Amino acid sequence: MSSRYKDRIEKFAARLELSGFNAYICTNESNIFYFTGLPGPATLLIRQDGSATLYVSPMNYGLAEKEASQELEIVQLKMGVAPEALLAEILSQLGGMVGIDNLDIDTYRKISGLIGGIDLRPQSRLVWDMRMSKDSYEVEVIREACSISDRVMRAASDLLVPGIRESEVKAELTAEIYRRVGQEPAFTPIVAFGERSSFPHGPILRGTARDRVLKKGDVVIIDLGVKVEGYCSDITRTFYIGKEMDEKLQNAFESVINAKTLAQSIMRPGVSCSYVDDIARDSLSNKGMEPYFTHSLGHGLGIEIHEPPRIGPGSQDQFMENNVVTCEPGVYFIGEWGVRMEDTVLVTEESAIPLTSYPLDEYLVY
Amino acid sequence: MSSRYKDRIEKFAARLELSGFNAYICTNESNIFYFTGLPGPATLLIRQDGSATLYVSPMNYGLAEKEASQELEIVQLKMGVAPEALLAEILSQLGGMVGIDNLDIDTYRKISGLIGGIDLRPQSRLVWDMRMSKDSYEVEVIREACSISDRVMRAASDLLVPGIRESEVKAELTAEIYRRVGQEPAFTPIVAFGERSSFPHGPILRGTARDRVLKKGDVVIIDLGVKVEGYCSDITRTFYIGKEMDEKLQNAFESVINAKTLAQSIMRPGVSCSYVDDIARDSLSNKGMEPYFTHSLGHGLGIEIHEPPRIGPGSQDQFMENNVVTCEPGVYFIGEWGVRMEDTVLVTEESAIPLTSYPLDEYLVY
Repeated sequence: MSSRYKDRIEKFAARLELSGFNAYICTNESNIFYFTGLPGPATLLIRQDGSATLYVSPMNYGLAEKEASQELEIVQLKMGVAPEALLAEILSQLGGMVGIDNLDIDTYRKISGLIGGIDLRPQSRLVWDMRMSKDSYEVEVIREACSISDRVMRAASDLLVPGIRESEVKAELTAEIYRRVGQEPAFTPIVAFGERSSFPHGPILRGTARDRVLKKGDVVIIDLGVKVEGYCSDITRTFYIGKEMDEKLQNAFESVINAKTLAQSIMRPGVSCSYVDDIARDSLSNKGMEPYFTHSLGHGLGIEIHEPPRIGPGSQDQFMENNVVTCEPGVYFIGEWGVRMEDTVLVTEESAIPLTSYPLDEYLVY
Repeated sequence: MSSRYKDRIEKFAARLELSGFNAYICTNESNIFYFTGLPGPATLLIRQDGSATLYVSPMNYGLAEKEASQELEIVQLKMGVAPEALLAEILSQLGGMVGIDNLDIDTYRKISGLIGGIDLRPQSRLVWDMRMSKDSYEVEVIREACSISDRVMRAASDLLVPGIRESEVKAELTAEIYRRVGQEPAFTPIVAFGERSSFPHGPILRGTARDRVLKKGDVVIIDLGVKVEGYCSDITRTFYIGKEMDEKLQNAFESVINAKTLAQSIMRPGVSCSYVDDIARDSLSNKGMEPYFTHSLGHGLGIEIHEPPRIGPGSQDQFMENNVVTCEPGVYFIGEWGVRMEDTVLVTEESAIPLTSYPLDEYLVY
């Protein structure tokens, strides 16, 4: 039985051939994980014939022997080999056009004298075109991560009793994630009370502003994700601590939920990402809320919490089948409050299926 | 009163002049934080005359107004401006030699046609030369972070009773960090029981291997850090759950502690980092342990958890006054156990002062 890693490498090798590349070098950790299963730094060479070699430091060699796909050649490097020296050595075995996922100018200048007849081309998109469209195993583990993050959101919202501190909510929801999946959150959770919710990424934690106690009448933003088998989920809910909110805040909740529902309903393969972002903005502008929507509508996710496609103004991306993306409109009145609602969504031919499913309308907590 | 940010920008501008640069562009988040106090993405232009302009997205503009140094010009960008378009616009106002902290080849190729007479040079080292040598404020906040991480290590070691799970220790120590500083750990803490300690970065958390229960006779590695005012600490201790260990394990504990003490004692401004790494390796080879020391001796830290200098084989770096670095030898017998001891250390003219200080010899837990 050939592994999912071998399948991916073979598919990628076929793409290399179609694009005229003789070989491709991955240096990015999540590309390494995607093609080999090794969750750590390494360098991977994939040749057009589907063969591949993984170069690993002494520190990670034991891990690679245990965790990386055994259908690869695994080479242990010497201690302290500089990345540019390894790159030059790998390239010395190759010829023609060679792709690479990442290359900074410093490294390029160091090796450019050494690689004679090779046409080295940074082209991260070649891997992204595969990674953006999730296979059935990936959808399954992301679905599990999403389902767990729903339950963590429930546990977090249950803590929202006046008198609790932001830091206690963060500590408890993080502990809940460790209990449920044994490992850290997909990203540092955002828990922002009151005026601190008016910053999309939450408050700055400095000096006396490191923490805040919850009060009646506060808006609360909670943005969290978990990782299962190396794949992320991402969900945001906004809550209100009280029974009745003023008209402006009520308008914000309703407008954001409407914009989200509408934008999500038109995500389909072939649809332009910037168009869906436009639709969300148009929907918000009906209620005068558009100027306060100060970020992009969403992003892809998978092994990384931010992946292509980018769903925002000016994006050149289009949706593809089996994209997993967030849909997360939000409006922010600086110094007052912010409202954001976000789900992780699977894009299929027929519909965009929410993978996170905490009820959008249960935002009153009292 | 001029702020620490203005002082840093002025010092840096003087260095620009000495190195022949007309201006310098920072795109790296921690450089932005260092020069402006803004903890978020932005682009910063520093001119040779000491003036500076911060370009911020609409999403982060409110944050910048509140948190960034008010001695800067702050410009709000339009939604969705591509990084290369912003870079080209900034460069169009400049001439001569311009430095930049980071530039990938893709971006460079996109803008190279647009920047006519400008000699754009990626040179991250120019900022690192300043950031590597910590000022007194930075030393003070790192010292606080270190002192808190000692106390978190104590709380974590108190949990090491047979029957507890790795995930519970991680959850509890993370909660302790949230309680003490209100924010997330400096990095995902490593908690590795038994054979899982034989991987320097801890076990892989997949499938049924997501967690492990502590048993008598286990070695335990705990590696953790906290952030205070944006600055990191880093400490590792290895424990043994029992009263008596076999000779090989006892030898490992003693050799690692000896190598660490010796290496730390010779860290001084002007000393080569690879030499200190050599000394640690020589010390371990006396007891036959050197082949199992499969990583570098240490690294700088500050705003980021890994900064220059690199203290390892082949490093070209030398210690500078007020470097804050880790010293962390370790030996790993794959499938059996690993032993690592790490402190955060301040390098001064007179000595290398440990900033973390959990006792090295309190490794027996029973």
